[in-house]
Parts: sequence; C-alpha cells; structure tokens
Amino acid sequence: MRDLAADETLQFLSLNTGTVRKQGGLLAILDAAARHGISNVAPWRDQVHEIGLERAVRAVHDGGLRLSGYCRGGLFPTDDAHRIEVRDDNRRAVDEAVALGAPCLVIVVGGLPHFARPGSAASCDLAGARAQVADGLAEMLAYAETAGMPLALEPLHPMMAAERSCVCTLRQALDLCDAIDPSRSRGLGIALDVYHVWWDTEILSQIARVGADRMLTFHLCDWLVPTMSVLSGRGMMGDGVIEIRKLRAAVEALGFNGAYEVEVLSDHWWSRQIDEVLSVIIERYRTVC
Amino acid sequence: MRDLAADETLQFLSLNTGTVRKQGGLLAILDAAARHGISNVAPWRDQVHEIGLERAVRAVHDGGLRLSGYCRGGLFPTDDAHRIEVRDDNRRAVDEAVALGAPCLVIVVGGLPHFARPGSAASCDLAGARAQVADGLAEMLAYAETAGMPLALEPLHPMMAAERSCVCTLRQALDLCDAIDPSRSRGLGIALDVYHVWWDTEILSQIARVGADRMLTFHLCDWLVPTMSVLSGRGMMGDGVIEIRKLRAAVEALGFNGAYEVEVLSDHWWSRQIDEVLSVIIERYRTVC
Repeated sequence: MRDLAADETLQFLSLNTGTVRKQGGLLAILDAAARHGISNVAPWRDQVHEIGLERAVRAVHDGGLRLSGYCRGGLFPTDDAHRIEVRDDNRRAVDEAVALGAPCLVIVVGGLPHFARPGSAASCDLAGARAQVADGLAEMLAYAETAGMPLALEPLHPMMAAERSCVCTLRQALDLCDAIDPSRSRGLGIALDVYHVWWDTEILSQIARVGADRMLTFHLCDWLVPTMSVLSGRGMMGDGVIEIRKLRAAVEALGFNGAYEVEVLSDHWWSRQIDEVLSVIIERYRTVC
Repeated sequence: MRDLAADETLQFLSLNTGTVRKQGGLLAILDAAARHGISNVAPWRDQVHEIGLERAVRAVHDGGLRLSGYCRGGLFPTDDAHRIEVRDDNRRAVDEAVALGAPCLVIVVGGLPHFARPGSAASCDLAGARAQVADGLAEMLAYAETAGMPLALEPLHPMMAAERSCVCTLRQALDLCDAIDPSRSRGLGIALDVYHVWWDTEILSQIARVGADRMLTFHLCDWLVPTMSVLSGRGMMGDGVIEIRKLRAAVEALGFNGAYEVEVLSDHWWSRQIDEVLSVIIERYRTVC
C-alpha cells in the first residue's frame, strides 16, 4: 500500500471542489489549492459554468493542475418531453470534460424522473427509472467513446435512491457495466466513494470484481454518527466510522494508481474558512487514510 | 391480492405502537386502537417495561387484541464485558414475547458495538460486528426455539448500518437465515419493512426467496423526499415514493396472510393527536396500500 504519510508533494491527493463550494468560486478554490500544494482537483459543472468553460480551462492550465475527474453527467430519468434536452446536456458534459483534460466524467445516474430532472412528470416507477438509466447510459457511452472520454459510473448510497441515483450498490453498477460494455472497452468504469459503499457486506468481493481497467476514480470522506443530513452530512476522514484503509487497500490491490479525491459535502465544513478546510484535509490524508 | 378497501373490520391492519409513542403510554395507545377498531398491535419493549409485563399482558387479553409481533430483541455487537448481559437481555425479550402471545419477536441485529450497546468499547470493525451477529443470533435461536418463539430478522436500511443494523439487505438477512437455520425450522424468519428495502434492485427476487415459512411480519410506511431525519423521518403511506402495492403483491404471492403492521417513526406524526394519526392510518390503509 502507498504510504500517504510520506507523500510530501501530495501527488496522490485530489480536492473535489464541491468540498469548499460555499467558500468561493472555482478560481478562488483553485488558488487556495495551489497555496496548499494540492495539484489534483475535480471541479463540478456548475462551478465551471459560473466562470465559463474557457476561463476554467485556462485556470487549470495556468495553475499546472491535473484533474482526477469532472463532476458530473447522468441524471437520465426524465419524461419524454425532456429526453432530447437531457441527452444534449450530457453530450455537453462530455465535451467540457474533454476541454478540461479530465481523465473521466463521473456519472450520477439520477433517481425518479421528477427529482433527477425537475419539471419532468412525477413517477415512482423505480424499475422504469433503471431501464431509462441503462438506455441513457448506453447512448451516452457511444458519444463519449467517440470523444475519447471515459465515463465513471458512481453507485450512490441507497438513501439517495429517489433523489440522486437508482444505482445503489457497486454490484448493480458493475452489472450495468457488464450489460452495456461487455467487451470492457475502457470507455466505461467505476467512480467509487467510500461514503456510498462502506456498509455493503459484498463490498470487498465487488471491488475485486471491478478490475484495474474499470477502477477510474476513488473518493474519500467519512460517515458520521449521527448523520444529520442525507445530502450534506458527510464527515472529514477520521471523524466517522468508515474503515478507509481497508477499502483503500482493496482498491490499490487492483493496481489503481490514481489520486485520492476528497469529497466532503458537509454543512459543517462549508461553514469553515477554506484554508482551515484544506489544512485539515491534508493532515487527515497523511494520518488517517 | 387482498382488497384492503373492503376490509371493514380492519382484520389485516396492525398498529406498531412506536408510531404513536410520544402521544402516551401503552395503555393509552391500546385504548385508542380499540376506539378505532384496530385489534392487531405490535408493542415495543420499553413501552411494556414502563407499565410492567403483567399489566401489559392483561391489557392485551382484556382488549381482545392480537399481536403481529413484539419489538424487539437483538443488538448483538458488544464488547466482552457486556456479552452475558446482552445474552440475558435477549432471553428476557423472548420470555416477554411468549407472555404477550406474540407470533414472533422482531430482531434488529445492531451495528457497531458502541452504538448497539452503549458502554461497549468503540470499534469500527463492521465485519467483526457481523460475526458477532451470526454467533449471537444462533445462540438466541436455540433459546427461542425451546420457548417456541419465532425470531423475525429485520434487515434495516443501509443508512442505519453503524447505529442499528449491520444487516442491511434482505439478501444478507436470508443468507444469515440459511447459515444459521439450514433446515428451515420455522424458528427463524424475516420481518420485512418496505422502508428499509424499497430501493433494492434485488428486492422482488429476494422476496421470492423468503418463502411462506419465513415471511413472519410485514411493515408499512413510506419514504419521504426529502428525508429530514435518518431515524425519525418516515412518511405515512401515500406521502412518499415507495411502490407499496408492488411489494405487498410480492409478499402476498408467497402466501403471507398476516396483518400489515404500520410503523411510522416520525417527528411529524409524533406531534399530532393520537386519534388523528389513527384515522389517517386507517384511511391510507384502505386507499393507498
């Protein structure tokens, strides 16, 4: 296993910019990352749109930054009236990821249509949503492969099934990869976040099933007890109950050599100064992960 | 499928008394149930202890009530210092269930030791907790079989893995049943709550796997979007996104003919008058479920 305590240059640490999204815009976040010696980042689409794609591309280039991923495409379930709009939105996400030089575009598949794409007619047909995800992802993959942009399918915690992702386990995500991309084209893989999967009895055997070729990006945070918010109640590594090293060891055993992306979506950490948050991330990265 | 709209006498409706636990003690709850024509109930241990087991047994008998289950035993993970205490506590739960004439004792297995049994030394070893659950449940089953009390193992939503239950899916619960009770003694089965399992891609195939002999009790409520509390944010049937009828049909297809137990643990419904809550339950039972 890599010795993160000895990673003086933070070469394996990436900052998901959602972690400090309330503290400032993307340029301020990239500046802060540079101040702390963090050179890998994963920006969100809305943060990029706020300053414009060209400005974001320039900032990444000028800062000598590498991306560990781009957040995010997907949110496939919709009603018929919005289907083309969703397809086109996802194609733009692919194009943006290419422009930014991202190694992958993270895919959060969406839950029920009226939550995935507000304005869609309401439906509680979860199996129907999953069928839409399979169709939408297959169509998007064809576009993304032409563009040379790998898609990183992220299973989300089951508590987000209605709102964010009807793909709730790594097993389900891998089944979907096998169905859509049986030849393992390297165009479709997995974004694995410890927060979403730590509880799963099958997690170690399913990680083994991912394989090096499909292990595209790996995210860190922690699960707090109690969890005060379903969407923004994540903890900093070390403050919760997740056995992070056990999961990291399983991922490294695959041959994964990417950066560890810290994504702490948290009302608490959003309320702190950005330099404090980054200092704590670096300290925990070296001592806890 | 049974026609609940035509169930004039509410013969298939049961009230889990946790649903109105903040409105009064067990005797007041049983009185209110009787006022509304509800004759099946599932009381909680703390509510029984509050008035004493003998008084509770008399109230159930005098009211002509039937139990759909008794909540609850389990919470197995603990440190060595508390192991005998936990075993004895679970034996008392079996004895109480027998005294009350319950058809089964619901088992919530517990999460990490310091949450399952406060006072236990802290540990984040989730695999270790699961091993303790297997051992503890096997030991408890031997006692319960002698007492003639079936144990109903309840998988809980993965968001409760640390605090309440490291058994998070129906598949996992059934694997545990198969491992501990391979001969299907009828002493070990499943308590299925739509709240905990609705998100699971495998839920219909796993329900089919339960079989009539292991389908001991079935619980209803709903999943709200947004969910404001992990432990007490459940919705009344019809207010959320769960396809209740689809799940009920799968359970009935097994041959299940028990009552539908309404368990809405909710800050909102705990703040309403008990008669209002029961009226709404009866209306939703007949129109939504």
